[in-house]
Amino acid sequence: MQDKPSPIRETDDEARKLARRLLRGARYASLAVLDAESGFPAVSRALLGMDVDGVPVILVSALAGHTVALRNNPRCSLLAGEPGKGDPLAHARITVFCTAEPVARDSDDHARIRARFVARHRKAELYVDFADFGFFRLVPVSAALNGGFGKAYQLSGEELTIRGASVAAEWLHPQELTGTMDEQAEAVAHFLKMPETGGWRISGADMAGFELVRGDILVRCEFETPVFSPNEIIDRIFNFAKTS
Amino acid sequence: MQDKPSPIRETDDEARKLARRLLRGARYASLAVLDAESGFPAVSRALLGMDVDGVPVILVSALAGHTVALRNNPRCSLLAGEPGKGDPLAHARITVFCTAEPVARDSDDHARIRARFVARHRKAELYVDFADFGFFRLVPVSAALNGGFGKAYQLSGEELTIRGASVAAEWLHPQELTGTMDEQAEAVAHFLKMPETGGWRISGADMAGFELVRGDILVRCEFETPVFSPNEIIDRIFNFAKTS
Repeated sequence: MQDKPSPIRETDDEARKLARRLLRGARYASLAVLDAESGFPAVSRALLGMDVDGVPVILVSALAGHTVALRNNPRCSLLAGEPGKGDPLAHARITVFCTAEPVARDSDDHARIRARFVARHRKAELYVDFADFGFFRLVPVSAALNGGFGKAYQLSGEELTIRGASVAAEWLHPQELTGTMDEQAEAVAHFLKMPETGGWRISGADMAGFELVRGDILVRCEFETPVFSPNEIIDRIFNFAKTS
Repeated sequence: MQDKPSPIRETDDEARKLARRLLRGARYASLAVLDAESGFPAVSRALLGMDVDGVPVILVSALAGHTVALRNNPRCSLLAGEPGKGDPLAHARITVFCTAEPVARDSDDHARIRARFVARHRKAELYVDFADFGFFRLVPVSAALNGGFGKAYQLSGEELTIRGASVAAEWLHPQELTGTMDEQAEAVAHFLKMPETGGWRISGADMAGFELVRGDILVRCEFETPVFSPNEIIDRIFNFAKTS
């Protein structure tokens, strides 16, 4: 017998889109781990990247408490979605429960993740190759989306990952190409009515979308339907301002 | 035998001041709890208030996951300190490990905490008295301050609480008085070189300092030395712009 109506709404396409935009468009997140020594849940701030399959990635120092914690217990969660003006609870945010997987150096995964991360966070180039720094993929298990007061949704990990994403080396190709698409980046920023003009670039692309960056602004653009070859991405970005 | 130099600096007065300003001046925080069902560390966003002894407080719904979690296991942590422009990791933030204590309704504690919380977050008046809403005091156990790259410090819970703070009802008096000190609030805001003029108010005071608010801006002002009587607070605020 259920005495109370559930505060959780049924997850629809709009909720899924908001969830993906929040997670994939987040430059940083609050990361909760289990402190290895005390057993306390410990929350800290981490820069966020994204692998080609939509899995969030973090770049962390082996000296940091969260790294020791994740090596001891891979269960974690991250909170994405920055509050803007006004009531912080009126702004959409998402808690994503994840299992952390360390990324081995000198692997293809590492090369791809490193390239995408540094394209998004240029200053990370200063320390990404330090011996004590490494990446974790935070594979989504489930998520709780809060779209503002009374708008709570539950999502599965699969709803946040990009199904069928190839992680082959060829996907690095459009990643490199997009670096030379500055004019196209300006066109998309104009289409999206971003107030800033000049200095926009496309920092990454994958079969579900691409990201525009300018200084400390990051905008995630999702394709209406997924792309199934690396070369198609370029066409889609060229047509984004016309078709979306 | 220690192979590596510790990345933790010795905690000095400057670090303690920064830690207190970050925690006491935070309108909201990321809150990490242990999910009661899954055992995952779960991070969510919560509005933050502050009791007269410097202990952070949250107002939460019994329906929310973090509330169920805290009733099951009171160990939690919160992350305070908002990133501004530029690299999010260059901005100071603090992780405070806490033990959560529910605040009983109809207690003196509840009346005091409720008054302070609503003075800080006026919109909370809309739901603070709902049957399923309640306060927790998050009593600091220890803290990790990150003042930016290479500036890590450890603090004890005692360093974040206000020693000898009286929680007697008489401390509600200056709290009410400060509501009528709008002119004084403008003077302090001007002294602090805040770009906004008009609309400032003093939302709370205690023996260690007071807080200025204007819309979604919150500024914590710390006294150089603590105040030992409620009436003295008014004088201190009047003199703040002259003596600090």
